[in-house]
Parts: sequence; C-alpha cells; structure tokens
Amino acid sequence: MTDHRAALNDLRALLGDAHVLTGEATARFAKDWTGKWRADPLAVARPASTDQVSQTVRIAARHGLAVVPVGGNTGLVGGTANTGALMISLERMTAIRDLRPDAGVAVVEAGVVLSDIHDAADAHDLIFPLTFGARGSARVGGFLSTNAGGSNVVRYGSTRGLVLGLEVVLADGRVLDLMSELRKDNSGLDLRDLFIGAEGVLGIITGAVLRLLPKPRHHATALAAVRDLPSALTLLRRLQAASDGAVEAFEYMPRSYMTALATHRPDLRQPFAIQDHAVMIDMGGLSRPLGDVMEEVLAEAVETGEVLDAMITQNEAQRRHIWDMREVAAEITFTRLPIVDNDVALPLDGVADFIERMHAGLARIDPQADDLIVAHLGDGNVHLTVYPTRDDAAHLDAIREMIEGVVVDLGGSISAEHGIGLSKLATMTRRKDPVALDVMRAIKAALDPDNRMNPGKVMPDP
Amino acid sequence: MTDHRAALNDLRALLGDAHVLTGEATARFAKDWTGKWRADPLAVARPASTDQVSQTVRIAARHGLAVVPVGGNTGLVGGTANTGALMISLERMTAIRDLRPDAGVAVVEAGVVLSDIHDAADAHDLIFPLTFGARGSARVGGFLSTNAGGSNVVRYGSTRGLVLGLEVVLADGRVLDLMSELRKDNSGLDLRDLFIGAEGVLGIITGAVLRLLPKPRHHATALAAVRDLPSALTLLRRLQAASDGAVEAFEYMPRSYMTALATHRPDLRQPFAIQDHAVMIDMGGLSRPLGDVMEEVLAEAVETGEVLDAMITQNEAQRRHIWDMREVAAEITFTRLPIVDNDVALPLDGVADFIERMHAGLARIDPQADDLIVAHLGDGNVHLTVYPTRDDAAHLDAIREMIEGVVVDLGGSISAEHGIGLSKLATMTRRKDPVALDVMRAIKAALDPDNRMNPGKVMPDP
Repeated sequence: MTDHRAALNDLRALLGDAHVLTGEATARFAKDWTGKWRADPLAVARPASTDQVSQTVRIAARHGLAVVPVGGNTGLVGGTANTGALMISLERMTAIRDLRPDAGVAVVEAGVVLSDIHDAADAHDLIFPLTFGARGSARVGGFLSTNAGGSNVVRYGSTRGLVLGLEVVLADGRVLDLMSELRKDNSGLDLRDLFIGAEGVLGIITGAVLRLLPKPRHHATALAAVRDLPSALTLLRRLQAASDGAVEAFEYMPRSYMTALATHRPDLRQPFAIQDHAVMIDMGGLSRPLGDVMEEVLAEAVETGEVLDAMITQNEAQRRHIWDMREVAAEITFTRLPIVDNDVALPLDGVADFIERMHAGLARIDPQADDLIVAHLGDGNVHLTVYPTRDDAAHLDAIREMIEGVVVDLGGSISAEHGIGLSKLATMTRRKDPVALDVMRAIKAALDPDNRMNPGKVMPDP
Repeated sequence: MTDHRAALNDLRALLGDAHVLTGEATARFAKDWTGKWRADPLAVARPASTDQVSQTVRIAARHGLAVVPVGGNTGLVGGTANTGALMISLERMTAIRDLRPDAGVAVVEAGVVLSDIHDAADAHDLIFPLTFGARGSARVGGFLSTNAGGSNVVRYGSTRGLVLGLEVVLADGRVLDLMSELRKDNSGLDLRDLFIGAEGVLGIITGAVLRLLPKPRHHATALAAVRDLPSALTLLRRLQAASDGAVEAFEYMPRSYMTALATHRPDLRQPFAIQDHAVMIDMGGLSRPLGDVMEEVLAEAVETGEVLDAMITQNEAQRRHIWDMREVAAEITFTRLPIVDNDVALPLDGVADFIERMHAGLARIDPQADDLIVAHLGDGNVHLTVYPTRDDAAHLDAIREMIEGVVVDLGGSISAEHGIGLSKLATMTRRKDPVALDVMRAIKAALDPDNRMNPGKVMPDP
C-alpha cells in the first residue's frame, strides 16, 4: 500500500491532482462496450503530452506498476481489462498537430477521435478512409493498437497501409520517433508495423502521421438481395471490373442480421422484404459518377437470377440510411447474454463453406442456439455472434472450439480485425502456430523484459 | 579447418555434392551488380525445399557458421557480402506451388524469379504489380527481404502490401508458418512485415503468398518535358484526379539522366530534344481507355506552360521503348567508379528543395563532380548518383554526409527501397533515431542470439 501511495504522489506531482483519477472517478473506464470485461485499476493517469506519457511510464516502472493504455474504450476483446494496473488514458492528447492537404498527411496525437480526423480532412476535400461504427468515440492510439479494420478495407487496404509515421513510448519510458511521412523507407527493420496492432503490449502509441486521400465526388450505393454467397462474390468481381476497383464497401447482411435489425431498430425501415442473403454496396469515384455502372451491373445480375431485388439510393439521405442499417451492428449484436462472439477471416471463396459447416456444428452442440452474421465480404471478414441456450463456460467453449476448428480448417484466422486482448488467449494457444507464438513472446520479452506493458494480453503463457 | 571440413561433410550428406559449392564454383556469387561488394564464402549450399533449408541452417548452427541467404544477387547494398560464411542460395526453390485466379493469390517458393511470376499471372489476365529493372533475375526471397520498391508503388503500394503470407526458417532451424491468404488477420504481433525487409538478419524467407490483381486492359503512356518539379507534381495530381488514381508510374528523368542515356544507349532514341526536366507517365485502366484523359490533361498543362513538350505512345512497341529508357537506369548508372550512390526518400513536396540544396553542397565539396538523378517522383524516391573527381574514402564520405544531412533536414530517409546491407551502416549510425536502432538490435538479439543470420548487416554495432 505504501508503494501505491508513493506512486500516486509521484503521478500527482507530475500531472496534477485532476489528472490522476482513483476510486469512483475511474468508473467510466471500468466497463467496456461488450459488458464482458472489467477494469479495476489502481488509478487512471491522464498525461497531456508525449513527454508526460514518457514520465508516467517511468514512474510506473519505478514503482513496479503494470501499465494499460486506454483510448476511446470501444474495443471488444478485453484489451484494457485489468486489476490494479496504472491505466494511461490518452484522452487529453487531442491535437491535430499538422494537416498538409497537398502532401496528403495529417499529424495527430493519440487521443484524437476518429470522426474528428474525418471532419478535419473533409474540410480540405480529403478523406481518412478508415471508418467503423464506433468512429465517434474510438481514438488514434486505440484504433492503431488494434489495427482496426472496418468497411473500407476492400478499397483502401488495412490500417497499417494508411499510417506513414508513428511515435511510441517504450516500456522504459524512451520515445521511439518514427514520425516520418515517407511513402518508402527501407532503413532497417519495420518497427512501425510491429507496434501497430500490438494492443499496447510493446509500448504506448502517442502520435501518428496518417495518409489522407482525395474525397470521392460521386457515390453509388445500393442494397441488393442476392441468390447466394457465390452470386455475391461474382457481383463484387463484376462491379470491380466495371469501375476499376471503385467498390468502397461490400457488406453481407443475411436474414439473421436483417431480422435482428427489424426487431431492435424498426425505425431503420428496410427497402424490401427480408430475404436469405443481402449485400450493401458502396462505390466511390473521383472523376465520374458511378450510378450507371451500378445500374448496369445490377440489371445484368437480375437477369441471370443472381440478384433477386435491389434498391439504388437516390440521394445522400437514402445513402446514410443504408449505411446506418449496417453501422448499428455492434448495437444490435450485444443485446443479450450469453454470447460467443467471433471475428474471423477466411479466404474470399471460403465464406459460404464456413457458414454451412459452422451451422452444422452448432446444430450438433446447441440446436436451439440463435446466431447473427454480418460480414465485410470483400475482405472475407465474418462477424458471427452465437447466442447459446445455456450460460456455462464449458458449453460456450465447446461452441467456440467448434467454430475455431472450421476456421483453421479453411485456412482462416481466428481474429480478423478486433484483436486478441484477453478474449482469445485460449484460442491463440489452441490455433496459432506455436513457432509464431514463441517469436511473439521473444519480441515481447526483448522490448518489455519486466512484462509491465498491458501484461497478460495477446500472447498466452507458454 | 577441421570444423569446416565436418560442416561441409554434413552439408554434402544432406544436399548431395552437386549442391554444396566451394572454391571456383562459388564465383558467380562472389561479386554483386555494383562491383563494390565481394562474397568469399566457405561454401554455397543449394537446398531444394523448406525442410532442406531448415536442416542446412541447423548444420550451420551446429558448426558455428554464419549464414547468408542469396537470391538473384541483384541487390545494391552489399547485403550478401561476406567472408567465410555459409551462403544459402534459394535458386533451386522455383516452384509456383499454387495459383488461384479467382482468389487472386499465388503461392510461391523463395527462388522464383520475378518475371516468371509476371508470366504466370499474365496467363490468367492478372498481374503481380511489383516490377523493376532486374525483374529477370531477382527472386522472391531477395525482393521480399529488401522490401523492393520499383516504379508501381504509386499505384499499388509497397511490396509489404502485396504479400499475404510468408514462410521463414529461423536461426534455430524452426519453420515459421505464416502462409495465410487472408486480407485481414489480427491474431497477434505482425511478424510478416517484420521479416519482409529484414535483409536476412532475422531468418530466411522460403515461401510467400502473393496478391494478384486484375490486369489493366488499357494503358496510356507518355514522356513529357515539364517546366520544373512543382509543375510535375501538379501534373501528377491532375492526372490522378481525372483518372481515379490510375497512374501506375510517374518517373522523373532530368537532363543528367537523359544525357547519360544518350551517351550509353544511343539506340534508345529520345522522342524530343533533352530538356531540364522530364517525366515518364504510365496509366492503367480496367474498364476504360485512358488516352483521352492523358491527352486532355497534357494539353491543358501545355497551355499553362507547365508542360513544354510531350509524346504519347501510340502502340505497345512505343510504350515498351519509353519503359526501356527508364529501366536501363542501373545499367547506365554503374558505368564508372568512384561513385557515391544514394537511394533517398523525401516528402513529395521536398524533392525540389533536396536537389537544389544537394547541388549547392556538392559545389562546395567537389565542384567538378558529375551527378545523375532518376526518381520515382510519385513516391518521393530519388536515386542520386554522384561521380566525385577523387577516389579517397574521406572525400567520398564527406559527400555522403552532406547528402544525408540535407535528406534528414527535410524529413527524409537515407534508404527508400534498396535497403542498408553493409553500404549504409555508417549512415545508420549517424542518422537513424538511436532508440529505433536499439529496438532493432533488441529484436535481432531475441531472434538470433548467436548473431549468425547475415551478421553485420542492417544494424551497426552500438
């Protein structure tokens, strides 16, 4: 206890009393979005600069405290869960240090909220393409530490590809300065991509240089009921070929999703009767409208019977409405417990197989269980939530293990975009190449020898 | 000596006499393209499979031998230079294990030559976008270990972005299996991107899953003389906006380059008189021809005075001719010694500044020195070769240091795409963030504790 008091005193001397939260004041960090994971930290420190983050980490080191960074607290895998750690909130580091439209770069601090970056870019007719439902809360440090995915990866690539530079506070408090804005840089090992997606176990991201891209001037957006998943993939290929790859989102929303949507958000009226398979399509063009392309490709697919029904939006309000139908996914997913939530990636042509085999497996283990699927189909990324009929750990784990087995069998990944955190440690042990796990542990031990940076996350103990 | 004999015996027992080269038989590995770097290995082993690579590395470990992997031997930085190491040539691992057109993936072994991948993709109307002059010799393991860049990065992104999966033999002989073909995979630390560009210091790449993309059906290609560098960048932005980012190459070839081209390759006739600044432009479209866009944008730029002269190619032979003018760069660069060759990256809007300040510095140090510049301008990547008038180490280093100073001052990198090898160790010591160097060394020590994987490369001793 004495040690803790000394640590808190040091932190207060550095940051001021108002920025070292304890007790009740930490309540808003205690619970995550899923409701499954809890944080019960010794304190939450709120440094206002990279230098203060560095000093805070040094104080933690001196007093032997574990350090858990937190951004917008929108993660889904227990990445900030802890007991007795020093949480470091980046929420005061909200400066957009620089934005140079001609160079297409924004230099941001780790606490900037994603939608604020969108707004700042938009003022210059630019976009930062990464987007997902929680964009109004998620912060730079968090969405980079999880290499967050979202709906636009099919067009603009992964988050890693949108980051040019990075600033990280290491376990010993030193600042790693990789804040370049270069398109090419082969000067040694690629440290940037190692810290992106590391979920805070190697260091704390404090700043980044992000790529901004020209804002599409024209959008073509549609909701289409399709015959089956292969028809959806054929449709995607035709749209890509006809538009030079202008498809920005291609989201699979089958009957299970549309039914949950109708139940929980009847205000989001659906343009046609619910059918087995539907996709939301958004295309973006700089130099030409894409409405004709959308209409032609869909008309052709209606004739071949691959598309059963379709609605092309006529204005921005309709477009927003279709997007809202997709973006409330997290809200309508976490409506009841128990759940087994999965975020898996598959080879593009393996999604239909996955769903079929998973349903067969579920019918054996828990025939009355419901499930809900929504997928970034263009990336082979399926969000599958199972609602089992019984809430005992062994039962939930049996379901999880069955799903993992199908995923790994098909050459997939047990985490596509949400990360590992605490939620998938057992899965990592069961399913990840043991050599890869060893290499990860060796890197972790090299950079954080005292195991104080978000300990216990990402890599299961051997 | 006894040890060496024992090691060679073990290798011969594993691979057969024909695949353990010594003495004269190693001559073709002794010299690199630049003529500056030498390899004098104990032997060159030529394993035929991942398992044989693994066994070879284990034999090297048992006998305390350093291991230096070699692919097509087209590197420019001394990455395979050594004395007394066991070189491991991947040249027998030339299988394209799988190519699935609908999934857009090719599974290749590390010894496959780049142009063979191009041909295999082309047969299915697909491309593997990475390309550069040495594509007829460079092999997978080499171009991935250097994260090779080239002319198409402006359109298709870096080599890292074109790799989905990777297979690596580690220092202890274990095989790290990251051979997935997923678009998204957040299951732990990003090991793939760490081994890509590591120049063999962390392990030996033995296989990869590469992304294949639809082959453009239409090309528009031109050579244009421009007023100055800012005009060139304005031209690039206009072309990108008018074509939805279809610019595949935007190569700067100023007077110094065109003059050397005229001298060394008079057969490659130039379409107009040499002027101060020229750019080669190539655009590629899937769904529409881009000739009209090229013509309109160039015509507009001629009117504003930004473009002084231009030639748009009318057929594939002319297009090939223009590309040849660019791709002989390595050939016409390394025609005489001494040279100080630089491969630097700058913020896009810093290239003009760099050239001006570099010329001013050179005028002070060696007023009679020549220089030759060719640049991937769309990436801010400048290849600058200086031909000093005196060949003494201190003089060459003074030039190098002056250039580095300008680069770092402008927020650039001292290696854009060629890598570090041996050639830029001093530069790394002088110019790289010392914290970054420490982190690299810590990772190296964790994965290769005995320092046997391509030792002495990339990271200078502290």
